[in-house]
Amino acid sequence: MNPEISPKELRQLIRNKEWTIPTSGAARGCVQANLVMLPQDEAFNFLLFCVRNPKPCPILDVLEPGQVEPAIAPGADLRNDLPRYRIFVNGQFKTESEDVADIFNDDMVSFLLGCSFSFENAMMAAGLPIRNIEESKNVSMYVTSRPCKPAGPFSAPLVVTMRPMTPEQAVRAVQITTRFHLTHGAPVHMGSPAEIGIKDLNRPGFGDSVTIRDGEIPVFWACGVTSQLAVTSTPLSLVITHAPGYMFVSDLVDEDLTIL
Amino acid sequence: MNPEISPKELRQLIRNKEWTIPTSGAARGCVQANLVMLPQDEAFNFLLFCVRNPKPCPILDVLEPGQVEPAIAPGADLRNDLPRYRIFVNGQFKTESEDVADIFNDDMVSFLLGCSFSFENAMMAAGLPIRNIEESKNVSMYVTSRPCKPAGPFSAPLVVTMRPMTPEQAVRAVQITTRFHLTHGAPVHMGSPAEIGIKDLNRPGFGDSVTIRDGEIPVFWACGVTSQLAVTSTPLSLVITHAPGYMFVSDLVDEDLTIL
Repeated sequence: MNPEISPKELRQLIRNKEWTIPTSGAARGCVQANLVMLPQDEAFNFLLFCVRNPKPCPILDVLEPGQVEPAIAPGADLRNDLPRYRIFVNGQFKTESEDVADIFNDDMVSFLLGCSFSFENAMMAAGLPIRNIEESKNVSMYVTSRPCKPAGPFSAPLVVTMRPMTPEQAVRAVQITTRFHLTHGAPVHMGSPAEIGIKDLNRPGFGDSVTIRDGEIPVFWACGVTSQLAVTSTPLSLVITHAPGYMFVSDLVDEDLTIL
Repeated sequence: MNPEISPKELRQLIRNKEWTIPTSGAARGCVQANLVMLPQDEAFNFLLFCVRNPKPCPILDVLEPGQVEPAIAPGADLRNDLPRYRIFVNGQFKTESEDVADIFNDDMVSFLLGCSFSFENAMMAAGLPIRNIEESKNVSMYVTSRPCKPAGPFSAPLVVTMRPMTPEQAVRAVQITTRFHLTHGAPVHMGSPAEIGIKDLNRPGFGDSVTIRDGEIPVFWACGVTSQLAVTSTPLSLVITHAPGYMFVSDLVDEDLTIL
């Protein structure tokens, strides 16, 4: 963990509106999470969606209705401790906000889902290239032709991130990310993008395109954006998520999430 | 998989009441599962209990309310395809039954949870001793002093199984069972039973006691019986489970459950 700021200190800065930028690289070594809040009527079905699709939607924590203090970050308040939220009403994106204390209510259930920052740290420690970080860009994300398993009213295509590497590096990347099954785990595909419905690697659905060098192949991991497509796939009265890149920073350290 | 009988054939025999004995060793190599059925009102909380306690309660499949055909066994019917069920009314054990077609209703949600048969096969293939199988006994199970994480009205102490082995064998057993994270995964404890609240290894809470030889240590794994204690920890109007040893046999093969 980066000693310069603890996750608790970071969350306090965010709560005081003194930290209003993305959380990438902050409190490095601590687990960051995707946030989804939705009405308890549909909480079972959304939890089921996550359970059925553990690679894009790995569950780090689920709170009881109305609760805002996650077990993985004692003292935190999910209504204030992320720097930016997105609010959806009746299935439509409404606005972004720096806190949701005024609209969160006792009927809502909060989900924290793993994100790929944890395994990126581990891959970098092993000397593997993370091209988007090398090029100071957002990771390339693509909507694939592979459907997730639906649950109740929730459905979504699998969204993937892509990192280019040599085949030898890809082997090592499989080994390293396998350990991190709660932050998307091993790749879901590598090589031919067409096979998973990606027509042009230079035109990602979200994020930026990155350089693919001679001799490199695209390696694809399941992506947490899948959960955002799923939760907005049906018109719920109110849904709150983090804004992309503005994650929840927990007290867990990356190694807490490893299977072995 | 044992070629003499397929899981589909086994389920048909069971449905015809032509197979009324425990399922241990049947359709060997196929994944067997614990069954829990409960009213949908509490399905979210019970799913949450399982998610929060993945080692004792690893989720293989959860069905929508009223559904009886699991994704992991197309064509199966959970109301008839287990040889014996246990029925609980208002939290009290009521009776055992050979099918539950008459009492299952559209309001109920079914959970299939991993069981330790899968990793026992893998350990035996590696030459490790499974003492209870060697001695033709039921595995030794103990209620520990470690509480599971509660969820809604559900709580339970962690229940463990115990298999004695040498320290060297225990190291190998950790490696092998780590791969099977959906059937309880790596041990939760080894060595001192007192540390997890077990006073006398010769007096298990469930199952039989087995011989512990000189130089062997007890190795403890999380046990699916935990889920049965949890689901009966609050007086639900109706709960159905499998009877101990009379499991649901799915179409999955053990290797489908491995993380690596």
